[in-house]
Amino acid sequence: MGLFSTPAKVYKPAAEVDLGPDSGEHYISPNVKAPRVAGFLVKMLAWVLEIPILGWIVLSVLKRDNLIYKLVSDAEIPEPPLFTATHTWQAAIPEQQVSVTEPGLSPAERVQAAVACIPADLEPPAAALADGPSFRRWTVRDFHRAYSSGQTTPVMVARRFLAAVEECSGPDLNMGLFISCDPGDVLRQADDSTRRYQQGAPLSAMDGVLVAVKDEIDCLPYPTTGGTRWLGSARRCVADAACVAQLRTCGAVMAGKANMHELGAGTSGINPHHGSTRNPYNVGRVSGGSSGGSAAAVCAGLCPVALGADGGGSVRMPAALCGVVGFKPTAGRLSNSGLLPLNWTVGMPGILAATVEDTLIAYAAIADQSKPSPLQQPELNLPMLTCTRSMPNIRLAKYAKWFDDSSEDIRSLCGKALQMLRTHYGWESVDVTVPEIEEMRLAHYVTMGSECTASLAKYLDNMDRSEIGWDVRIALSAYGSFSSRDYLNSQRLRCRQMYFHEKIFETADAIVTPMTGVTAYALQDDALSTGELDYINGAALVRYSIAGNFLGLPAITVPVGYDRGGLPVGLQFIGRPWSEAMLLHLAYALQEACGKEHRKKPKVHYDLLRKQ
Amino acid sequence: MGLFSTPAKVYKPAAEVDLGPDSGEHYISPNVKAPRVAGFLVKMLAWVLEIPILGWIVLSVLKRDNLIYKLVSDAEIPEPPLFTATHTWQAAIPEQQVSVTEPGLSPAERVQAAVACIPADLEPPAAALADGPSFRRWTVRDFHRAYSSGQTTPVMVARRFLAAVEECSGPDLNMGLFISCDPGDVLRQADDSTRRYQQGAPLSAMDGVLVAVKDEIDCLPYPTTGGTRWLGSARRCVADAACVAQLRTCGAVMAGKANMHELGAGTSGINPHHGSTRNPYNVGRVSGGSSGGSAAAVCAGLCPVALGADGGGSVRMPAALCGVVGFKPTAGRLSNSGLLPLNWTVGMPGILAATVEDTLIAYAAIADQSKPSPLQQPELNLPMLTCTRSMPNIRLAKYAKWFDDSSEDIRSLCGKALQMLRTHYGWESVDVTVPEIEEMRLAHYVTMGSECTASLAKYLDNMDRSEIGWDVRIALSAYGSFSSRDYLNSQRLRCRQMYFHEKIFETADAIVTPMTGVTAYALQDDALSTGELDYINGAALVRYSIAGNFLGLPAITVPVGYDRGGLPVGLQFIGRPWSEAMLLHLAYALQEACGKEHRKKPKVHYDLLRKQ
Repeated sequence: MGLFSTPAKVYKPAAEVDLGPDSGEHYISPNVKAPRVAGFLVKMLAWVLEIPILGWIVLSVLKRDNLIYKLVSDAEIPEPPLFTATHTWQAAIPEQQVSVTEPGLSPAERVQAAVACIPADLEPPAAALADGPSFRRWTVRDFHRAYSSGQTTPVMVARRFLAAVEECSGPDLNMGLFISCDPGDVLRQADDSTRRYQQGAPLSAMDGVLVAVKDEIDCLPYPTTGGTRWLGSARRCVADAACVAQLRTCGAVMAGKANMHELGAGTSGINPHHGSTRNPYNVGRVSGGSSGGSAAAVCAGLCPVALGADGGGSVRMPAALCGVVGFKPTAGRLSNSGLLPLNWTVGMPGILAATVEDTLIAYAAIADQSKPSPLQQPELNLPMLTCTRSMPNIRLAKYAKWFDDSSEDIRSLCGKALQMLRTHYGWESVDVTVPEIEEMRLAHYVTMGSECTASLAKYLDNMDRSEIGWDVRIALSAYGSFSSRDYLNSQRLRCRQMYFHEKIFETADAIVTPMTGVTAYALQDDALSTGELDYINGAALVRYSIAGNFLGLPAITVPVGYDRGGLPVGLQFIGRPWSEAMLLHLAYALQEACGKEHRKKPKVHYDLLRKQ
Repeated sequence: MGLFSTPAKVYKPAAEVDLGPDSGEHYISPNVKAPRVAGFLVKMLAWVLEIPILGWIVLSVLKRDNLIYKLVSDAEIPEPPLFTATHTWQAAIPEQQVSVTEPGLSPAERVQAAVACIPADLEPPAAALADGPSFRRWTVRDFHRAYSSGQTTPVMVARRFLAAVEECSGPDLNMGLFISCDPGDVLRQADDSTRRYQQGAPLSAMDGVLVAVKDEIDCLPYPTTGGTRWLGSARRCVADAACVAQLRTCGAVMAGKANMHELGAGTSGINPHHGSTRNPYNVGRVSGGSSGGSAAAVCAGLCPVALGADGGGSVRMPAALCGVVGFKPTAGRLSNSGLLPLNWTVGMPGILAATVEDTLIAYAAIADQSKPSPLQQPELNLPMLTCTRSMPNIRLAKYAKWFDDSSEDIRSLCGKALQMLRTHYGWESVDVTVPEIEEMRLAHYVTMGSECTASLAKYLDNMDRSEIGWDVRIALSAYGSFSSRDYLNSQRLRCRQMYFHEKIFETADAIVTPMTGVTAYALQDDALSTGELDYINGAALVRYSIAGNFLGLPAITVPVGYDRGGLPVGLQFIGRPWSEAMLLHLAYALQEACGKEHRKKPKVHYDLLRKQ
């Protein structure tokens, strides 16, 4: 119990909660009158929280204000804990319009299988990249075609890429996209790839394709900083992460380590050590986080695909803010091997890409097929996007109060997108109630914070706090304040939510939500060196992300338009366990129905395939 | 980190730990100079620990002295957490000399299948129960035969039982065996059973057999007190626990609610509310706990079988101290439904019985077959005890430093027992190292304490502490003091131990240990109303218990003799997941090899089948 307890919530048994549209369940939107804090006030708060007893008292007040005592710590929860978000293969249901891959395929073979699922391009590549309605980004297949035809080479593209990175990292733009990028290493890989194309033997459609890698994922020859300035030397990177190694066997060129919010402990992408990642659509706006560098790099045309990691929406949220696709498969579908161990039960790699097709290709490449046991995961089904139009009877669950807890433009654009799915494909939407959304967000926060504390203790216990950014010091103080009871109660809330979602998936194929409650907000100067505390915007950013992580469900965001300020808006589908193929079908349908017509070119964008 | 940290242990990766006999792993025996505390000092400590900041400081000192900071909280542990002790059916290996039951059998049918696995009695029942070498307790089959032949009836036995309970509960003996026993309810059940025998239609070999039920397990018409004086009314018992319901369908007579250490939060069986359970072999000694009443009731001849619950040795440890068999199957083999939720990941029901044969019968009756999924559990194999002698090539792992960390008499008797298995059956013993035993005990303590705190919070948060025994108030203060980091680090140690044990089971069929490090110690008057803190004896009691709970492994203890004070000594086998049949074979072999010759009759013993 906290020092300043409020009457705790008494949860009724999960089975007694009405999940129908007229349920009396109370929807809580975080509406604490918490002012945005930056600059000196952030420093002061960080200091105070690190003072033994005073810090504990101040944290108690903050936790009370955020309803953590009421909804988690002191709450009466009938369910036992559910400790992980893993699903057995038995949770998988038969999927439609899929190509079933054989278990023994190599990543490169799976890439080829994915390419076979994709409709032929109708738009001539030459017409691309103009501004306005016909803008589109180059795709994996565009690069592969250009390399195969001899129009350009991986080395030429790599040179343009390196020049672009140099330009946008310079003082004029100061985009903060990469933490490290070794030109020699990039050119060496591109050179190998160029030779393979010259010999007529590319490894796959991804050969020579640039992929940015979030600096939370091991990728030689770089240190893995996790957005810090100390972790790269405290923990040596000795091998590629599993997903990086798989991409390499497909010939992809690792393009450098993308910037991120320090330790993934924030959502803005503001980073005092490596520069804050700016949004290519508006350099005065944030990119979102924590995989902000990956999202912005794809947005700016620097690579068609990037790797991120998603522990609390960290792939999908910046993808939405930067107008690209963000995909987090089912927990366990991708290997976590080689990711920084920032937590154990909520995070995993994810994919950022300009199109759903490229998302599918990268997904096929990095799917983890190393665990043959059916206990671990079912077979890898790839969606036949050529047949998406004939997907029958899709039912999309929508919780109106939650769906509408977003800015007016988001609400309107996402509503229209959903309507288009109905009219274009005849799919239904089903009104439901997803109970205890805010409760789940808090339980996820306690879980992620507790696990981060335990996992990083070997580094954090003995280091100089001044090495850490101010906002992250505050986050770490909060993370370290949770009791085992807080943690266990959070897992009991996980058990409830798993039950709720299983029930909802009995009546619907996916849950549909906006991806974020706000679009990219202002990146203010006073936050650049201290970070900022912006509880309202932060909560709005992660509002729709948590089920994907806390319950290990697959989820994908697709851009559906731009708000009045010209900033991208994403719509999210959350699927059943192992329903990645279904989600990619939905995402592709959405992209085809409403993504293409209104594509805007970002202010900062590079054309790596332009004619000489 | 605690206030008074010591340099923390840096664990090397589990895979690098040498599990061979000459491993350099350090064996830690808790040798804190902690004096036994009882009476007023216990009260004072309870008060101090409940004072907000002072209590926290004192607890910090205690935790440092117990090495919790060094070995758990602040330790550097390479492994991720493993949150539960559940095993997949795939962990099961083919077993030998078993009778495979069909999935759809009723409990009564399974009892009959178990009886068919048991050799015919060689000792004539009439010769039993004399003192000295020929002493033995009446078994399920003795009762069934006596009822079937008309020698006696369940009602006559029930009357003798009730008279015995009255006598030993009286001021002269004050044995503290039962918390509640409703004569009307017992006689009603016995009457029904008697009628069935008269009609020639008993439900099974357990029909009319008395079974005491630990007061942690729901059994109508009794409240479930958990050894407290408040929980029975705070939480209503509305139905029989699953294992009780199964026994009822076999015709067993529920004989009342056996005494226990309050909330299972101690190992002595001292209970200020319901009387302390005395050891029938020496009423000045403890019974052990927490299932002390169940163990002492079987020991005293009041029932051939009793139900207990085992979260930290709570079935096996009092069984050993009282000279009976104690059996905890694999986690998940028995249903936890209807047990007090004192924890989620370490406890389950267990069986106490006078003989291995009766253990097998009760096990067959209460095995949980309600989850048909192979993910939950493999088929139920019953050991053909008729064929135990022909079990080939059994390999028993022994860790000498651990095995020998017990009193001289225990060491000697257990060593002899192991030698007898070698000579009688030709079984091998294999020298191994089981690393980090004390570390595992602390991690289990943190786990159990944290889970107890979260689970009971709905009751404890709002109650008057004076309702709770003094020693348990101290335990609850410690339980509630753990951070989420403590909890997570404990689960990381669970992961290591699971790995170690899996490796050891690659070279051996079971691990063999004494069941306790000490025999029943003195029950001192100053502890009767306050309980006592006896860290040294407490740690010695649970020394060999923890793997069974923390790793969900099946384990069984069998009496192998008596120390110089005439107090029983038990030997334990810890088995692979789902290897219950193997363990029962081992236990039966041990019982036949060395249990029979030296049986002593307890000072307090009742003969419920004596001739009129």
